[in-house]
Parts: sequence; C-alpha cells; structure tokens
Amino acid sequence: MAPQTKRKTGHPKDPLGGEDALIANHFAPLAADWPGAHGLRDDCASILPAPGHEIVLKIDPVRAGVHFFLDDAPEDIAWKALAVNVSDLAAKAARPLAYLLALSFPEKPDPVWLASFARGLAQAQTAFGCVLIGGDTDRADGPLSIAVTVIGEAPAGKMVRRDMAQPGDALYASGHLGEAALGLAVRAGADEVPSWSLSAAERDGLRRRYLRPEPRLGLKTALRNFSRAAMDLSDGLAKDLGRMCRASGCGAEVEIADLPRSKTMDRLLGADPGLVAKLAAAGDDYEILAAVPPENENDFIASARSGRVVVSRIGQMSHGEGVRLRGLDGRELQLEATGYDHFADK
Amino acid sequence: MAPQTKRKTGHPKDPLGGEDALIANHFAPLAADWPGAHGLRDDCASILPAPGHEIVLKIDPVRAGVHFFLDDAPEDIAWKALAVNVSDLAAKAARPLAYLLALSFPEKPDPVWLASFARGLAQAQTAFGCVLIGGDTDRADGPLSIAVTVIGEAPAGKMVRRDMAQPGDALYASGHLGEAALGLAVRAGADEVPSWSLSAAERDGLRRRYLRPEPRLGLKTALRNFSRAAMDLSDGLAKDLGRMCRASGCGAEVEIADLPRSKTMDRLLGADPGLVAKLAAAGDDYEILAAVPPENENDFIASARSGRVVVSRIGQMSHGEGVRLRGLDGRELQLEATGYDHFADK
Repeated sequence: MAPQTKRKTGHPKDPLGGEDALIANHFAPLAADWPGAHGLRDDCASILPAPGHEIVLKIDPVRAGVHFFLDDAPEDIAWKALAVNVSDLAAKAARPLAYLLALSFPEKPDPVWLASFARGLAQAQTAFGCVLIGGDTDRADGPLSIAVTVIGEAPAGKMVRRDMAQPGDALYASGHLGEAALGLAVRAGADEVPSWSLSAAERDGLRRRYLRPEPRLGLKTALRNFSRAAMDLSDGLAKDLGRMCRASGCGAEVEIADLPRSKTMDRLLGADPGLVAKLAAAGDDYEILAAVPPENENDFIASARSGRVVVSRIGQMSHGEGVRLRGLDGRELQLEATGYDHFADK
Repeated sequence: MAPQTKRKTGHPKDPLGGEDALIANHFAPLAADWPGAHGLRDDCASILPAPGHEIVLKIDPVRAGVHFFLDDAPEDIAWKALAVNVSDLAAKAARPLAYLLALSFPEKPDPVWLASFARGLAQAQTAFGCVLIGGDTDRADGPLSIAVTVIGEAPAGKMVRRDMAQPGDALYASGHLGEAALGLAVRAGADEVPSWSLSAAERDGLRRRYLRPEPRLGLKTALRNFSRAAMDLSDGLAKDLGRMCRASGCGAEVEIADLPRSKTMDRLLGADPGLVAKLAAAGDDYEILAAVPPENENDFIASARSGRVVVSRIGQMSHGEGVRLRGLDGRELQLEATGYDHFADK
C-alpha cells in the first residue's frame, strides 16, 4: 500500500490561513457564550452540570448522499445535523446544553458555503438552546460528513429510557409520522410525486418536514413526569418501536387508523392506500414515541399541550414480543421494508 | 442530482441481522461496566460526574489514508483512534471516563476485522481507564472513518488550558519528539529508511511509536499542580507551540539541542543533521507540551517522575510572539514545513 499517511506530516501551511482560520472565522462566534469552550482555541471543552444533574450524550453523524443531499442549502444541512442529535435528547427529557462538531470535507470548503452553514448552525442552536463548544475539521476523500456530539443535562437518574415500557402502557407519538418521507420524495423528485397533485404550499411544507426536523423539546416535562419509556423515531415507526419492544421485553400493537395525519396525508392515502405501509416503515420523522401508563394519559396529553406539542395515541404495549400493525382495513400489515438499516443485505 | 437519500428509507432489513446485531455482538461488551451506557441499547448515554467535578470533552476523528493505513492491524487502528483523543484529556489533566464511537464503513464490515477492532478497543480502554458508552455505525462511501468523542472529568475549574502560559515559563515536553514521524516513515516504507540501517528492534520500536501512541496520563498530577498551560502535540512541535503562543499572547524559544532523543534518533541525526528540522515539524507525537513557572520546575519534574513519565526542558516562553527554534549549530531554524494542516494550500 502506498504511504498514504504521509499526508499527515510535513506539507507547508500558513499558521492562520488554513484550519485554524476556518475555525476562528466561521465557528468561534458560535461558541462565544460558553466560557468552557475557550473560544474553540483549546484542545478540550468543559461542562459543569447543574447540581444534582447528570450529563446526557449522543453522537449521530450525517453524511451527504445518505442523510442529506449535497446540494441542499447549507443552512438546512447544518440544521438537520444538529436537529437529529437534539431530537434524541428531547426523547430522553434532557435539556440541550452544548455540542461538538467534526466536519470532514472532500476538498477545501468554499467560504460562502461555510458562512451559510455556520448561519444554519446559529439558527439551530438558538432554536434548541445549545452552543458549539468544540470540534474538528479535516479533509478526507468521500462525501461531506458531519459528526455532531450533543450534550444535555437531566436530573440525575431521570433520563427517560427506552427499556422501561410495560404491557398495557399506551403508545403516543408526536407529529405526523411519515410526513418527512413524503418530503423526501418531493425533495428527490420521485416518480410518483406528480400524481399527488400537491399545491405549492403543500410541496414546501412537506419538503421542510424532511429538511428541517423539529426536535420536540416541548415534550420534556410530559416525558419526564408522565411517560415510562421514550425514544425518537429516526429509522421508521416499525423498526424503532421494535427496538423499544425488544429493550423492554414486551410487544406492541398499533392501529394505523390512529396514526395522526395531516390533510395532505389523508388525501394521498385516500388515493393510494398502499402508501400506509410505506409510511409506517419510513425514516426521518424525528418525532417522539412514548409509552405512557394508562393512569398518566390525561396528564401526559395536557403537559404535552402546555409544551405546544401535539401527541396522538397510536396503540399500546402488549405481552409477548414484536410489533403488530393493523392496517386501515383491519388486517395486519405485512411490511416488506421495516426501516432503514445501514448494514442490511440488499 | 439523483435522489441519493432514498437510501435512507425503505430497503429491507433483518431486525437483528444488521446494525443492531453488529453493535450487540462487538461493542456492547465494551460498555458492560457503565450503567449509564444502558448496554448501548438506548438513544443516549448518561454520565454523573463526581461532586465538584466538571466534564471535559473532545472529538477528534481519524480516517484511513490520513491518520492510519487501511491495512494496519485493526487492533492498532482502534488503539490509535482512542489514544489520540485520550491524549488531549491527558494534556488537560482530566481523568478519562468514557467515550462515544461513530464508525463509518465504505462497505459492510468483515466480522473478523470487527472482532479484532473491538479487541483493540478493549485493550485501549483498559489501558486508559475508560469505557464505551454509546455511538453509531453507518455505511458511507469514502475511507473508513472513526470519530471518537472522549469524556473525562476534572475538578471544576481545574482543566489545564493552553492560553495561560507567561513569558519566562519553562517549556517541558514528554517523550521523544519526532519518533512517531520516524515510525511513520518505517511503516510507510519511505525511500530513506534503508539508509538508516535500523535493527529489527529499532524498526519495531519506531513503528510502534507511530501505531500505538501512549497518552501521558501519568502527568495528570504534575500538570494540574505545577504547570500553567499545556496541550498535546499532534500536529508537530513547531505548529502546536505556535498555537500555545498565540493563545497565551507570548512567544517561545526552543533549543533543538535540548529536545530529548533516543539513541536511535541520536544516531540518525548524526548521519543527517537536516532531519532535525523535519522532526520539529512532524506530527503524530501525542506527547505533552507544558509551560511551567520556574519556581515549580523541580516539583513538576518530581511529580512527572512519580507518574512514570519522562519530561525534558526544551526551552522557555518569551515576550513577543512566534516560535524561535535554534538548531544544533546555534542558528535559527527556518522550517519550510511547520506541521500538518488539512486545508493548507499545497
């Protein structure tokens, strides 16, 4: 093999013309409000959680060609990279504090692109209440890769887990599951989209659901006080609910008729009932799935409403194992695809 | 653009045959000792720092072809991915607690390779005193990429920074700077290596310095109690010391004659004095650079010795700005290359 790693040593550079300047110009302003970020000029960042609180962490990288399109607006790419991570904190009822950002570019990034990307991060971190505290930038072959590690806090021992659901718990979901998948089809110009006869507003709304997921941070109090288990939905309801079932040692039953639908979705499903199964398996929702003990349901709904998040009862946890999805016709759905898996045999 | 992100939705998968199984089989055992890792089955991990302690974090990804060779032993790749991050904690006098791991493979990974990689992680985390608590695996075009986020703790406000050095502070370095660069040349089969007439033991020793950096965790007490500023050396002494100078608002003077050298290095420098400049600019050392007030020098050295780390006085911080390196002939070195920069114009 050729001495590839020679690239790591010894080529000329300008102390303030390369990586350091890029960080100072575009990213240091995002870290201004956090003393422990040291202006992004140190090797590490520090976080002192509030007394009695623990740190809650997650890393979930996104990549061009898998999680976003390379020609998406840089603001949207930045938003999504942070949002998909903050969504996990939201599901754990943790408050976002900070994030680390590792960027890998296939070539020296365009300053205009970078400025837009940093603007998107600024929008997202303001919306989610966290700040950049550290990171890394480098150049490597392959698609643009963005690895965010998000750090939140929760009262010690109060992180909401996914493995505590019990048979009989009601299952709730936020938002309109499957809408992001429709938005992806619109964004990608999929063959079937023209037949949907979408208005311009519908088209934009769906595309935005795919490009700009909204972490359901408003559910924090409802989840922490009234749910038994929760997780965010990133790989599709069928797959992610299956994970909650396995972790909790129980099964689940979902009535597709109970899944919340926007008017647009209702219309599309009316025209193509087969879409139901696809949407139940589609990823990118970044909505929250929660198992709520029956005696807490009213409080959960009221607390969610206070947090301005719409939740819907979509089924319940059951004895046994596995997920049973009952379709609009009352019959059990057989999903040929049950969510995204990076290493599934195709 | 083609609808690339369709890959994210809807292809068939086996709930326990892909990503979930990979994590359960190879990585969950590495998380067994940390309750807040939830067996790697939850969306997030939690960390409760010791009372009065803050969390110290770093993300530093490594990539095939830049930081390691794709055909390096998987154990060595794993060790290095964790070591380069733990090295930063060591420089901050923070104690490693845990790490997150995001792996991106260009194709479905070979189980044998993965098992070896996990073995290397096990060795490294045992050596460094931390455990895996979460992560992500996915598939993307491009080189194998490994993003480790390492999490440590330090007494609140006691993280050693790089921007606190003052003129007159003595400069200390651990280990033998430049040895890893020689090891890289050996590993890469560089043209000049045969002329070095290395014994087999020398060759192995140098290669190991490149492949298996040893974070200087034994310096923790010395750094925390007796240094004013510190950082780890990953991009070469000249460049990294320049960063400490800029952050601290002062300059530095280094006597190349004072740089600690192994017998092998002494012999090579005797035969090729030009190697001096190269080694001062070479990356991959993962040694620690510390600014120590003169009145603390004896205590710093003694404490380092207690921690079984050899340190050497290599110069001092000065008024003004910039790094001045005086060569073996007493004249100032002009470095044409001053360290690695991912975005420098070539």
